[in-house]
Amino acid sequence: MSKKVIITIDRQYGSGGRAIGEKLAKDLGIPFYNKEVTEMAAKQSGMSKEVFDKVDETAASSLLYSVVTGAYMFGNHVPPTLDLPINDKLFIAQTEVIKSLANEGSCVIVGRCADYILRDDESVVNIFIHADLPVRLERAIKEYQLPPEKAEAQLNKIDKTRANYYHYYSGEKWGNSFNYKLCIDSGMLGIEGSVAVIKAFIEQRNTK
Amino acid sequence: MSKKVIITIDRQYGSGGRAIGEKLAKDLGIPFYNKEVTEMAAKQSGMSKEVFDKVDETAASSLLYSVVTGAYMFGNHVPPTLDLPINDKLFIAQTEVIKSLANEGSCVIVGRCADYILRDDESVVNIFIHADLPVRLERAIKEYQLPPEKAEAQLNKIDKTRANYYHYYSGEKWGNSFNYKLCIDSGMLGIEGSVAVIKAFIEQRNTK
Repeated sequence: MSKKVIITIDRQYGSGGRAIGEKLAKDLGIPFYNKEVTEMAAKQSGMSKEVFDKVDETAASSLLYSVVTGAYMFGNHVPPTLDLPINDKLFIAQTEVIKSLANEGSCVIVGRCADYILRDDESVVNIFIHADLPVRLERAIKEYQLPPEKAEAQLNKIDKTRANYYHYYSGEKWGNSFNYKLCIDSGMLGIEGSVAVIKAFIEQRNTK
Repeated sequence: MSKKVIITIDRQYGSGGRAIGEKLAKDLGIPFYNKEVTEMAAKQSGMSKEVFDKVDETAASSLLYSVVTGAYMFGNHVPPTLDLPINDKLFIAQTEVIKSLANEGSCVIVGRCADYILRDDESVVNIFIHADLPVRLERAIKEYQLPPEKAEAQLNKIDKTRANYYHYYSGEKWGNSFNYKLCIDSGMLGIEGSVAVIKAFIEQRNTK
């Protein structure tokens, strides 16, 4: 693969988005970043990984700080001593990490508003993976050992948190096709099939 | 292609969705239906093609009738003499045509809520095609000869009508990725590239 590509993958919980991203990165021979982004953000900001893990992909509960974060995102410097909620500190630290990873070369990045953070980068192909509820339930119970009786509520809660998080930092609607280059229902194709379709997309894009 | 597939394509105006559907049908050697659905609906219902053309893919302006249409859609018979708005008469006639076309075998159907009408048909792969505004504007001006100074307003008006139409009859949000098996931004790949990705999707689906 000669042309640089940053593939960002956002995903419904249980849709297999992470697994798809992992397989895709392996097939394309490029790095894969998921939780690693949070680890790097902790390391670079000197914050605790455990604290960051707790608020990963979660919006700050207060709207008060969004103006400040917004100012940061639009290029103004925020003094690092400013007492932002931990969620916003994580977002700011992840922003630095994601921009720096994208600068290094082709890669796959899962979640964490990477597509929004890299919205001006023309090498980005942003992808959204979703699936019908029964497919996601089956996967969540089997792969993530969610207790069957609690799985649906848990899954909906996680997706609501992800949607809020995406909307809070990007101002955009999570899962609205207009925001993504490619959206796939993984339920029809499974992991391997979805990877094949994404590879076809990247291949076509590389010929342009 | 051995496995039956009904490919429904909904699309933003100027995104090339129709052209993509046409090329796809040709490549797969299956029939393509766009305006033809409306022509057949006129023929079968004994209504005027010209009258139907005027309200094609447009929702009735009154909400009053949606209950009646809803009753029809959920399986209750509506007497043909009932004085429904012409939009609803067209929708009902198109519903019959689309169901009958889907029964005949593999095909590509553009717009007209075909994915919603065939929502219980497991052979359906429903697709949404969109593109950024500059791409759609260029296409609308070049291919559909929209006057450049009026193109953006005209394009937004048509898409608003399509979104209303889809929501009115399906109750779902037009362009929300969760409702489609595959959504593609055609701006990055063009017509040929988008067709190649859809073919990859169908190929993967045929192996399941």
